[in-house]
Amino acid sequence: MNLKPLGDRVIIKQDEAEETTASGLYLATEAKEKPQTGTVLAVGEGKLDKDGKLIPVPVKEGDKVLYGKYGGTEITVDGEDVMILRADDLYAVFA
Amino acid sequence: MNLKPLGDRVIIKQDEAEETTASGLYLATEAKEKPQTGTVLAVGEGKLDKDGKLIPVPVKEGDKVLYGKYGGTEITVDGEDVMILRADDLYAVFA
Amino acid sequence: MNLKPLGDRVIIKQDEAEETTASGLYLATEAKEKPQTGTVLAVGEGKLDKDGKLIPVPVKEGDKVLYGKYGGTEITVDGEDVMILRADDLYAVFA
Amino acid sequence: MNLKPLGDRVIIKQDEAEETTASGLYLATEAKEKPQTGTVLAVGEGKLDKDGKLIPVPVKEGDKVLYGKYGGTEITVDGEDVMILRADDLYAVFA
Amino acid sequence: MNLKPLGDRVIIKQDEAEETTASGLYLATEAKEKPQTGTVLAVGEGKLDKDGKLIPVPVKEGDKVLYGKYGGTEITVDGEDVMILRADDLYAVFA
Amino acid sequence: MNLKPLGDRVIIKQDEAEETTASGLYLATEAKEKPQTGTVLAVGEGKLDKDGKLIPVPVKEGDKVLYGKYGGTEITVDGEDVMILRADDLYAVFA
Amino acid sequence: MNLKPLGDRVIIKQDEAEETTASGLYLATEAKEKPQTGTVLAVGEGKLDKDGKLIPVPVKEGDKVLYGKYGGTEITVDGEDVMILRADDLYAVFA
Repeated sequence: MNLKPLGDRVIIKQDEAEETTASGLYLATEAKEKPQTGTVLAVGEGKLDKDGKLIPVPVKEGDKVLYGKYGGTEITVDGEDVMILRADDLYAVFA
Repeated sequence: MNLKPLGDRVIIKQDEAEETTASGLYLATEAKEKPQTGTVLAVGEGKLDKDGKLIPVPVKEGDKVLYGKYGGTEITVDGEDVMILRADDLYAVFA
Repeated sequence: MNLKPLGDRVIIKQDEAEETTASGLYLATEAKEKPQTGTVLAVGEGKLDKDGKLIPVPVKEGDKVLYGKYGGTEITVDGEDVMILRADDLYAVFA
Repeated sequence: MNLKPLGDRVIIKQDEAEETTASGLYLATEAKEKPQTGTVLAVGEGKLDKDGKLIPVPVKEGDKVLYGKYGGTEITVDGEDVMILRADDLYAVFA
Repeated sequence: MNLKPLGDRVIIKQDEAEETTASGLYLATEAKEKPQTGTVLAVGEGKLDKDGKLIPVPVKEGDKVLYGKYGGTEITVDGEDVMILRADDLYAVFA
Repeated sequence: MNLKPLGDRVIIKQDEAEETTASGLYLATEAKEKPQTGTVLAVGEGKLDKDGKLIPVPVKEGDKVLYGKYGGTEITVDGEDVMILRADDLYAVFA
Repeated sequence: MNLKPLGDRVIIKQDEAEETTASGLYLATEAKEKPQTGTVLAVGEGKLDKDGKLIPVPVKEGDKVLYGKYGGTEITVDGEDVMILRADDLYAVFA
């Protein structure tokens, strides 16, 4: 991806919603709840603290992360749907 | 759990709501009020203060805690329902 | 009470509402206005100021206090109804 | 009064609303506009600034003050109605 | 006026609304738009900055000033209607 | 203009709305959209930063500026309609 | 463009919405969703941090950028529609 996030932002590829429910039924697209997990595609350089020191983003490209449902913005870049979030809207990383 | 909270977040396994009321009646799931107590599953590294010094999260894995009803986010990870909260939304620890 | 408040929080046992009005009538439970006074059961260690110095909570266990009607959270711990408030929501102490 | 305000709070005894209007009519209680002046009954020790230095409350017991209509909280202590305000909600002192 | 504003507040005597319109008509009281100009009656000592240094109020008694329509509070002191504003709600001084 | 803005405020004379549309029609007053450009009439001395150092206003008398539609306050001074804005509500200057 | 943004603002020429949909249909103007990409026309000098040090804007004239849908203000300058945004409302730059 030729897009460099600014500041403490990250770009994430959201995981696909599972097509079947626990009971085995297929779900129509609009009935599927969007997952809150995804893979980091790109990270910004971080943000400056009060003393002008750079605080790097706590995740890196390729990390699988869990994030807040309302924190990010969905955008379409080169025909691909991705999320842009601030590092602070990331909840956890899968170890 | 293979999930590492970021910053000053903690992951909590909420206690089960009790199945019976004081008068001995069984409650349907939607009538049970969710308890505000749970057990800490994982903690983040803490947050940085203004001088860049790390303030660790004041609880540790295994602690039983009391927390705010509206502070956290409920998520499902590997089929298990857990809560993600910031350390500041924890009210107290059971000694 | 085996519950330790976190940060600058305090746990308070709210005073009972008086059962009779000035004119001597008994009041039904829902008509009684909750008093804003109570007794401190437990206090947290305080909060850190900007320089990382701990500011202790200005009351101690056993103090009788006056507090804001909307500041705290009512919770039930071990069958007992208590209030959890931040120290800043305490208005005054009885000398 | 055996009540010590905490932080930069003050306790004030509100002046009585005048019983007659300019035209000499007596007013019913609910028609009288509450005055915004009163007498300081007790003051807290003040609040800490960013450097941990105590900023004392700018009024003292016995001062007659003018205050904001919405800033304070009315409470009843020992059968007496008083106001609790933060020092910053005091507008002016009568010299 | 025997009233000393606290902090960075000022007391202002609002200019009278003009009785006639441009076309020479007299206006009833409720149709007159309140002017946003007035004369400073009293000023507070100023407010403390982060380092505890006093920042004095930028106007003095007798200055004619222009101020924000919604910034101040109208009060009646000794039968006289005055405005209490914070120094920051003053827009400009007439030179 | 004998009016000195306080702090980081500026006084601006708004440009006149153009009387004709692109298609040559004359517009009634209420249909004309107010332009967001104007000329600086007077500037304040600036505001103090955290260390008490004065940050001057980044424009000067006579500058033509572009500003936010909702940032300022329209007032009438000596029969002339002007805008009062904070320096931060100015978007750009024409070079 | 003879317009110099103030502070950390940037002026952007928004990309044109594509005229055809994926299925080849032409879209009426009001049905086209505005793209969130554009080209930087001019940048301000940046903003001052707490210590009075200038933080420059992280993009330069000619950069193609991705920005927030609600962050900026659309204005018409010399008959041309441009966007004015703060640097913080820019999400990413195309590398």
